[in-house]
Amino acid sequence: MDEFEREALGDVDLDDPVLVEGLPGVGHVGKLAAEHLLEEIESEPVERVHSTHFPPQVSVDDGRTELAGAEFHAVRPEDGRDMLVLTGDHQAQDNRGHYGLTETFLDVADDHGVSRAFALGGVPTGELIEEYSVLGAATTDEVVDDLEDVGVEFREDEPAGGIVGVSGLLLGLGERRGFEAACLMGETSGYLVDPKSAQAVLEVLQGVVDFEVDYASLEERADEMEEVVRKIQEMDQGTPTPSDEDLRYIG
Amino acid sequence: MDEFEREALGDVDLDDPVLVEGLPGVGHVGKLAAEHLLEEIESEPVERVHSTHFPPQVSVDDGRTELAGAEFHAVRPEDGRDMLVLTGDHQAQDNRGHYGLTETFLDVADDHGVSRAFALGGVPTGELIEEYSVLGAATTDEVVDDLEDVGVEFREDEPAGGIVGVSGLLLGLGERRGFEAACLMGETSGYLVDPKSAQAVLEVLQGVVDFEVDYASLEERADEMEEVVRKIQEMDQGTPTPSDEDLRYIG
Amino acid sequence: MDEFEREALGDVDLDDPVLVEGLPGVGHVGKLAAEHLLEEIESEPVERVHSTHFPPQVSVDDGRTELAGAEFHAVRPEDGRDMLVLTGDHQAQDNRGHYGLTETFLDVADDHGVSRAFALGGVPTGELIEEYSVLGAATTDEVVDDLEDVGVEFREDEPAGGIVGVSGLLLGLGERRGFEAACLMGETSGYLVDPKSAQAVLEVLQGVVDFEVDYASLEERADEMEEVVRKIQEMDQGTPTPSDEDLRYIG
Amino acid sequence: MDEFEREALGDVDLDDPVLVEGLPGVGHVGKLAAEHLLEEIESEPVERVHSTHFPPQVSVDDGRTELAGAEFHAVRPEDGRDMLVLTGDHQAQDNRGHYGLTETFLDVADDHGVSRAFALGGVPTGELIEEYSVLGAATTDEVVDDLEDVGVEFREDEPAGGIVGVSGLLLGLGERRGFEAACLMGETSGYLVDPKSAQAVLEVLQGVVDFEVDYASLEERADEMEEVVRKIQEMDQGTPTPSDEDLRYIG
Repeated sequence: MDEFEREALGDVDLDDPVLVEGLPGVGHVGKLAAEHLLEEIESEPVERVHSTHFPPQVSVDDGRTELAGAEFHAVRPEDGRDMLVLTGDHQAQDNRGHYGLTETFLDVADDHGVSRAFALGGVPTGELIEEYSVLGAATTDEVVDDLEDVGVEFREDEPAGGIVGVSGLLLGLGERRGFEAACLMGETSGYLVDPKSAQAVLEVLQGVVDFEVDYASLEERADEMEEVVRKIQEMDQGTPTPSDEDLRYIG
Repeated sequence: MDEFEREALGDVDLDDPVLVEGLPGVGHVGKLAAEHLLEEIESEPVERVHSTHFPPQVSVDDGRTELAGAEFHAVRPEDGRDMLVLTGDHQAQDNRGHYGLTETFLDVADDHGVSRAFALGGVPTGELIEEYSVLGAATTDEVVDDLEDVGVEFREDEPAGGIVGVSGLLLGLGERRGFEAACLMGETSGYLVDPKSAQAVLEVLQGVVDFEVDYASLEERADEMEEVVRKIQEMDQGTPTPSDEDLRYIG
Repeated sequence: MDEFEREALGDVDLDDPVLVEGLPGVGHVGKLAAEHLLEEIESEPVERVHSTHFPPQVSVDDGRTELAGAEFHAVRPEDGRDMLVLTGDHQAQDNRGHYGLTETFLDVADDHGVSRAFALGGVPTGELIEEYSVLGAATTDEVVDDLEDVGVEFREDEPAGGIVGVSGLLLGLGERRGFEAACLMGETSGYLVDPKSAQAVLEVLQGVVDFEVDYASLEERADEMEEVVRKIQEMDQGTPTPSDEDLRYIG
Repeated sequence: MDEFEREALGDVDLDDPVLVEGLPGVGHVGKLAAEHLLEEIESEPVERVHSTHFPPQVSVDDGRTELAGAEFHAVRPEDGRDMLVLTGDHQAQDNRGHYGLTETFLDVADDHGVSRAFALGGVPTGELIEEYSVLGAATTDEVVDDLEDVGVEFREDEPAGGIVGVSGLLLGLGERRGFEAACLMGETSGYLVDPKSAQAVLEVLQGVVDFEVDYASLEERADEMEEVVRKIQEMDQGTPTPSDEDLRYIG
């Protein structure tokens, strides 16, 4: 297998689509948001990307295996703008993989005429969130303006550590190749899978891409998570706060 | 030395063989099973694979050294189907090695006319096993059917973490190259070298490949392991359970 | 993106410049010193270097992103020697990156006619410093002589562990390519960002390169750090000394 | 810089030399032994090997720097066999480096007509040693015989974990290229730099290569180490045994 390999899954013709990336990350915010789009709007598979920088692994679903990879789907909202949605179960395992996979993802985007890309993710606050703000970062002032119009917050020096992984590089490498790109980061505690933060991110994306989705399933999942938090808080009476480790994989 | 290197050890003509892989892993189940085949049925060495992704190491046997590698043996059961059995003392040390070694192993299989591959391994349950089930995963529904016929269990969402290493990639990469492949995973505690789990896996393999082997030596080794477990349980009265670390390398 | 990539930022003509490197390291001494030069003397950007061996990351400043990299600036002191100043937020993430980035940095230096290079950094003493000595290491006896004249100390067997990272390789690889190179290491506790040590290093560099800078802003920052130390010492009454971990990122 | 680079240091004509390797490892036995040869018998530098797989580092000696590397010296005992002695301060930092450096070392050996190689090292016993045995491993029965004649012990299944690093690969890769190679491993606690074990190894090597050296300086250093051990044992009265960590770098 080559270091980075594209596999076509369908022949799709998209009209001036935007790229929407949601790979695993903080609170699984980006992945939840991208997968929600695929569940709620009719979509079809476009390409799959494999790489020796993904874990050497197959997933198993009902006895059938599938090689680790990331997948692009075409999503065409009835009245809104076409989207090329990228999601998957893995991030690259090393630096060279992050750079090379992002270049490959941008190649795919290029081939489908994408000029604007949105990387979806979460930004950890360390505290349970009351009101879900969405933080932004972008490659051009024009994109910053567009996003501010729909309520995205741009703050001096936030996120402090910058943006790492594919989401960050979609902006860093995308800019070098002439893409307009933005990262939409939903605030999230960082401890829990966070459907509410995913919804906040999608509501913002809706404002710039113009689609309609129902949030019932995300809200239901958010209720389940709140139940989990309630139980942890009960267990917690008189005992030390559960550590990040305890909470990180709940969901 | 090249990154991946094949060294022919003998000139063997096999008749429509299946590949049987048993490299080190959970409970050493796959390795024990593959080595048992080599001990019980007449076999001859076919190829050895070296790689800069194996540990930089020689093993020492009676003062003579051998470079780290993996080895293919031809195994011809009297009445059953020919097998190309792959075993060794090492897994690759990094992702690129896992992918590259698996491709190399599939090259060898290809050259000997293999069309169906069985990856043998263990799946950790975290508890001592009473009844040894064998879990399956496969690349085609046809293989799933064949294996269900001989008692292999296919469960929704198991194993939860997928299958990693060469065993997983034999399916993931094998499928892309047109192999039919399955992974046979014996349930095992995950704490101990587990000859009983290896026997369970072989008994299933027997059903699809059709060979006869005596299990006396595996059973003897299983008795020794039970003795070890008994001693640990005695020591354990009133003391904390031995940690995974303590148990993992017993055997 | 290539493994190592140069991006021209301006067209600058320097007269027999020296290279001055100040990337992140012990006490951020080198980085503070290099950045102080850029703040105090008129400078202009020359080149930016990107690499797949830098972290897969963008920094965010006021909502706008910038891909991880290192940057060269031309600095022309009024009466002193021209300088090509290299600084940035990252070191390479692996050995191959350290070697390759250093070669790339030397390529840039070569293209601008550099023949002498100064790597700035800190050397940890494990104790709070009263008097800030600057330790030296160099590729030729001639450079050693020049630096001893301005007060740099050369000690047998110091620094004991040698010099690692780009600073070390600028000397090790630079020498092979005919550069005269020296490392100027300000003594520093190793626990805190150390503007005083950066000033000590600059005062020595001033002696050999001949420029004038105001140290008010570094002194101010040093005062802030002393305030931090004072607070830590107060908190510390009757409690264990704060660990390196606690202190390392203060500043 | 290339991944592996040879730099000629002198033009030396050796008569049917043996390669003697002593790089850092358990108890620094091999390195001490090789360096003792260089101190006690007239020698001259032959080649230096650099690599991006060595640490990105320069050593500093009296203010002058030297890039990380390994060095070959020609050693010509008055009456014995010529030796090409390889030593240095570093091992490779990764698997690919171990394999590639060993191939490079074998290239150098080849160019000087070496047909037999001795890798010197220590084998850890976990206990302070009373009588210093030397364990052997070799690529051919002929070398095993020669070494048994001079007192080297060959034991079934020892060393249990095989031989790792350059010492192991000199045998594993050397054999593939037609070298006769052996590893001579002095027993050593594994906790301390062990000049006595180095002497034991050299006394065995003397038997097969035929040279004369004075051991006074090694014995002196061994006395110093014994003094260290005595002090540790005194400190140890009523306190827990110093951990491996405490002891490992003493010497």
